[in-house]
Amino acid sequence: MPSRRPRSAGPSVSVLRLGHRAGRDPRLTTHVALTARALGAERLYLHPPDAALASRVDAVGRTWGGRFEVVGAPDWRAVVRQFDGGVVHLTMYGEPVAQRLPMLRRQRRLLLVVGGAKVPADVYQRADWNIAVGHQPHSEVAALAVVLTGLRGVPGPGAWPGARRAVVPQARGKRVAGVPTAESA
Amino acid sequence: MPSRRPRSAGPSVSVLRLGHRAGRDPRLTTHVALTARALGAERLYLHPPDAALASRVDAVGRTWGGRFEVVGAPDWRAVVRQFDGGVVHLTMYGEPVAQRLPMLRRQRRLLLVVGGAKVPADVYQRADWNIAVGHQPHSEVAALAVVLTGLRGVPGPGAWPGARRAVVPQARGKRVAGVPTAESA
Repeated sequence: MPSRRPRSAGPSVSVLRLGHRAGRDPRLTTHVALTARALGAERLYLHPPDAALASRVDAVGRTWGGRFEVVGAPDWRAVVRQFDGGVVHLTMYGEPVAQRLPMLRRQRRLLLVVGGAKVPADVYQRADWNIAVGHQPHSEVAALAVVLTGLRGVPGPGAWPGARRAVVPQARGKRVAGVPTAESA
Repeated sequence: MPSRRPRSAGPSVSVLRLGHRAGRDPRLTTHVALTARALGAERLYLHPPDAALASRVDAVGRTWGGRFEVVGAPDWRAVVRQFDGGVVHLTMYGEPVAQRLPMLRRQRRLLLVVGGAKVPADVYQRADWNIAVGHQPHSEVAALAVVLTGLRGVPGPGAWPGARRAVVPQARGKRVAGVPTAESA
């Protein structure tokens, strides 16, 4: 079967993750990266950069396909300034997502900015919109997942471009199929 | 203002988190717990139990209100067996969430089961449904957030019952209001 990544309509999305702490929470940022990839974002800008994490996420793409990339961002303000589209900061203090989602869906390109517990104060000013997924303390992984799904839907089954493996959905248990590659075909 | 927790219609939801590793990933399970709470679940069953984590989540509730609870589950199979409602295991190997969501929304009570990278094989049999939020490796926090939002929507602004503080949504910056309590009123 030809590899075809099922994508719904919606803006193309990049994610900027602020306040990564390579020593302390590699797993949490890994969850941010894999969530961004699985739910249809194109890249993750990571501040500060973390080459080991980028390499682990690349390995996921070599197995499961797609063109997601992790880009180290030593200067996150430059990423925001140079981004060719709307910048959305996800924060529990922002405007309710339900009010803004219809407008966001009409954008061509979006940068979703997620932080940890503390973000630099100027991100509230540099973003075009500050958006809340509920107004309770929770998780940047959860907020990112809800907004990505609201913008683009959940990708359906099927191998992604370049995948070596793809899940075959099952009511019970696990089934993974190998995908013929150009070399093996 | 009277405290009123804005809730959309939808099943009442409990969450069971398997494979918690208190030493290794307290923050990841904290994200599971806070996501469950913020997006309208009633409780988290935690296997294995972690009293320190439960206490940290309780502290969030004392400030921000609501009645969410963390319940230690030494025997997770007993939780599944005794649950008075449908049991949904979230896994990338399951059936596409879009196919099952309309049916799940009509349930009265649901237990959402999330694991880490590895879950005991029998969970696939013990669950009523195995459901995938996309079929790529990602995050139990993200999967939980997407399904909770699909079942119940995102809670709107407003203080939760018993809250001492509530966010006042802003286009820029942070605003948190104190909520008069019975004692201070």
